[in-house]
Amino acid sequence: MLILNVWPEIDGGIFPVKREIGDRVGVWADVVREGHGVLQAVLKHRHETEARWSEVPMTLENPGLDRWRGEFTVERLGFHRYTIEAWEDAVATWQEGIRRKREAGLDVTADLEDRPPVERVDVTALGRELEVLVEPVRARFAAWYEMFPRSVGAFRDCEARLADIAAMGFDVVYLPPIHPIGRVNRKGRGNAPVAGPGDPGSPWAIADHMAVHPELGTMDDFDRFVRAAGELGLQVALDLAVQCAPDHVWVQQHPDWFHRRPDGTIRCAENPPKRYEDVYPLKLDGNRPLWEELLRVVLFWIGHGVRAFRVDNPHTKPLAFWAWLIREVKRRHPDVVFLAEAFTRPRLLEALAKLGFSQSYTYFTWRNTKAELSEYLSELTRPPLSEFLRGNLFANTPDILTPYLQEGGRPAFRVRLVLAATLSPLYGIYSGFELCENMAVPGTEEYLHSEKYEYRPRDWEAPGNIRADVARINAIRRQNPALQEYDNLRFLPADGEHILFYGKATPDGSNVILVAVNLDPHAAHETTVHVPVADLGLAEDEAYTVRDLLTDAAYAWRGSANYVRLDPAHQVAHVLRLER
Amino acid sequence: MLILNVWPEIDGGIFPVKREIGDRVGVWADVVREGHGVLQAVLKHRHETEARWSEVPMTLENPGLDRWRGEFTVERLGFHRYTIEAWEDAVATWQEGIRRKREAGLDVTADLEDRPPVERVDVTALGRELEVLVEPVRARFAAWYEMFPRSVGAFRDCEARLADIAAMGFDVVYLPPIHPIGRVNRKGRGNAPVAGPGDPGSPWAIADHMAVHPELGTMDDFDRFVRAAGELGLQVALDLAVQCAPDHVWVQQHPDWFHRRPDGTIRCAENPPKRYEDVYPLKLDGNRPLWEELLRVVLFWIGHGVRAFRVDNPHTKPLAFWAWLIREVKRRHPDVVFLAEAFTRPRLLEALAKLGFSQSYTYFTWRNTKAELSEYLSELTRPPLSEFLRGNLFANTPDILTPYLQEGGRPAFRVRLVLAATLSPLYGIYSGFELCENMAVPGTEEYLHSEKYEYRPRDWEAPGNIRADVARINAIRRQNPALQEYDNLRFLPADGEHILFYGKATPDGSNVILVAVNLDPHAAHETTVHVPVADLGLAEDEAYTVRDLLTDAAYAWRGSANYVRLDPAHQVAHVLRLER
Repeated sequence: MLILNVWPEIDGGIFPVKREIGDRVGVWADVVREGHGVLQAVLKHRHETEARWSEVPMTLENPGLDRWRGEFTVERLGFHRYTIEAWEDAVATWQEGIRRKREAGLDVTADLEDRPPVERVDVTALGRELEVLVEPVRARFAAWYEMFPRSVGAFRDCEARLADIAAMGFDVVYLPPIHPIGRVNRKGRGNAPVAGPGDPGSPWAIADHMAVHPELGTMDDFDRFVRAAGELGLQVALDLAVQCAPDHVWVQQHPDWFHRRPDGTIRCAENPPKRYEDVYPLKLDGNRPLWEELLRVVLFWIGHGVRAFRVDNPHTKPLAFWAWLIREVKRRHPDVVFLAEAFTRPRLLEALAKLGFSQSYTYFTWRNTKAELSEYLSELTRPPLSEFLRGNLFANTPDILTPYLQEGGRPAFRVRLVLAATLSPLYGIYSGFELCENMAVPGTEEYLHSEKYEYRPRDWEAPGNIRADVARINAIRRQNPALQEYDNLRFLPADGEHILFYGKATPDGSNVILVAVNLDPHAAHETTVHVPVADLGLAEDEAYTVRDLLTDAAYAWRGSANYVRLDPAHQVAHVLRLER
Repeated sequence: MLILNVWPEIDGGIFPVKREIGDRVGVWADVVREGHGVLQAVLKHRHETEARWSEVPMTLENPGLDRWRGEFTVERLGFHRYTIEAWEDAVATWQEGIRRKREAGLDVTADLEDRPPVERVDVTALGRELEVLVEPVRARFAAWYEMFPRSVGAFRDCEARLADIAAMGFDVVYLPPIHPIGRVNRKGRGNAPVAGPGDPGSPWAIADHMAVHPELGTMDDFDRFVRAAGELGLQVALDLAVQCAPDHVWVQQHPDWFHRRPDGTIRCAENPPKRYEDVYPLKLDGNRPLWEELLRVVLFWIGHGVRAFRVDNPHTKPLAFWAWLIREVKRRHPDVVFLAEAFTRPRLLEALAKLGFSQSYTYFTWRNTKAELSEYLSELTRPPLSEFLRGNLFANTPDILTPYLQEGGRPAFRVRLVLAATLSPLYGIYSGFELCENMAVPGTEEYLHSEKYEYRPRDWEAPGNIRADVARINAIRRQNPALQEYDNLRFLPADGEHILFYGKATPDGSNVILVAVNLDPHAAHETTVHVPVADLGLAEDEAYTVRDLLTDAAYAWRGSANYVRLDPAHQVAHVLRLER
């Protein structure tokens, strides 16, 4: 007997698949055995802390293809295991033989005396245990907002800002490093090699991973900030940057953690020809004391109420370190979420997800056309990727102001907002997006007057802001479960190249959202969109209503082909709910 | 560092891929490592009997996708192993950093002093050894002919028959069991429950696996038959049927090898409601003495010059037994080929191929329409199946006379001949096919007067025979290397549903065969076929000649779209060679 083609299984089972609490985990396998016997198969599963397996019978879903299926529900965070066993049911085989002989009118007297024993014998085991990493629902469904608190003031000054972010409907407020910033080789405004007297420096030039920058306040102030956020329904995410300013406390305490040149100086971070003089990389390879110290850092902030980490450039640190760190943290605090800033090659981005990161940045930022978006988002939201990678679609970051946003004005921001917020249940914006800030260093994707190197106070009520759009789309997400699922995205036909049309539905079909977005921020376009009426249980020429949740307008549609016109000066998208 | 997505690799490496001697084995893998270092990877390989690995450097074929490739040639039969190792080349990384800095006009003095050591350090190994089963070329390219020698006479009477089979261009002559046939419960003509006085019985009711039926002659006669075949360029394949007549020698010697009912009688073979009273199944599960005895049987016939075995109903015997038997035989005689009569469900058919069978019977017999043939043969001849399964396309067997052949007359036989012989480099016919024998037991696929239960002498010169077609197509196969490859089949567009159009080419494009077959044996059809001119290095409107190797007619074609008409009364197919 062979148990083959198990699904889900990532790379022969060396990596876990991911699910969220309460999910049902469907497991398929081909159980192949010689002869004509009746088989039985069970799906065995347990939380990794449980000694005993639970058993669920599997069903022969496709006899011709020997395809079996079982499922279990994950009701506890952390690492679950599952495996499969199968055997020939000798009694059922005997009964089936007698049944078929009786049907053919044959004598079964001798067979009736030949009854086999009922024990399970010759059980064939899959021979390996597969894993599911069970995470909180917000690992899959959350709107992130990135802010530099220092542009607002100290933590104590941020409470109004938190209220505003909560009012816009965000779930997570993500802070770049809040630690003391090094003074040695500090960068000036616009990434100047030398800092001016009032320049605050880059928050990523960290001088102490376990302290709060004095200008932001005390640890108590931070705790109060986390509490205030919590009362508003916001979780606080911290940046985890595994690197040091030249005057970091570890440089003195652990000189062997840094790479020294033959002349005794410490090598700064570089990606030739770029050099980051304000940052020293750490020697992580096989450096277990440093791994333990970094685990201590993460646990320290978890102790202060942090439940999410956005990890800076994880693809430049050893993969084995992340696998270890995340498992160590998850075993203690399985509700903690890690977001990988994995702007790197696809296989490395995917490897980080496989090794345990809950979420990943993606190339969404640079996918603008209809073909690019439909191809890339299909890949992201379907197996195998959807089994282990959750793409968090940031519309901008402090490092990325795309040409599309630079050139497309306010409609471009509205387009990218709707796309990010409806293509994935995970998305984010970096503050200023809602003000349609679009001034870049010419020829680059860097912000002009980048907040990475200077304070950037803002007028949140500035004309042209799209805060109402943001609040609306976040409210729509919360009210429509179809938008809270990751792997239910389906691109639908729409004639022409400008209007992207897609749908998301709950498995039971009770909530169906259809989205049409005009990708051209400069001109109105019209098209015929094609609704998959048969799949939605509608007759080919049936009349139905779609309600635009952005405007509350209702449209009378009929059958598959329907007309859509979107003028970016007024409305860049329809987010339509099917009303039956 | 991670080494992922290795290809070829079947089910996580638990099964070997198959190649033929002299083949190059291309191996791909994603080598994923953090950071910006320069990597090196090697493909390591060795015959399983060699202690030392040979190393071949791998090439970064697709840097954006971290895809590496290497290849080695297999020049020895049997089981080869391969695996992969990768590491960061510290010196190359250092050189690349200096190069990029110099390009940017930066000072590299400090870097030049910082030269790393040249040893391979931190080598990451794949961690498992994958296998290639290397078989002789005839495991992939051979025309099989099945005959019941008893219908001709004794072995000594068969020499003229062998000459005729060789003259038709066959490579293998396959004989149903040649052993003594049991007398107890012997079947009569037409599978009658009781044999008449002159009825020879079914050859599969074997009374002694290590003897020749006296009516066929002595072991010496068999040896002479094998030699005579060899002198004609024919290999002899024997049937291996793991079952016994009730009066088999083992029934007395090893009563515990058989399944006894509570009343002490031995249970006969059955697949309810069918019963095979002339056959006892053997208890193979965990019965190592029987396994050893069956190995002895196989080695005995190998000792008598047999180099191929057609295994009867392998899917009703334990998979573990076949895996063991084939490996034991291959380790001693790696040139021996096993053909699985695996007429069972697809996953079980595939499992037998994975476990080591060189070739398999397929569902080709029952695929008649254009859609059926193109879908099924595409699946068979492409990865993953093509990596481990070689389909031997039998056009008929003693058990299978399809309705298509029963009803389509001589043209139907010619159609199926061309399809079998050109869709796969492995095909076969059972004797009588060339005489277009098409009389069936009504409502079944069984031959009327089945040779399984009676002698069937034939007039090989009977009118309407297609022996010349058979000889011609076999000669075409030998002269055209494109028809000797398994995984180069490509279906090409042809308008309408009747004419199937496909091509096969050698990798270097020096031999290109295009085949058009009218699948309708009853009527002439015409169509436009579409030649992939760009892929063949032809200009869109270039003129070229295609020569029909069946008739020697030459046609002047131009560009992609060309006209074909096939009248089954005259010619059912074109087998065209592209002439430049």
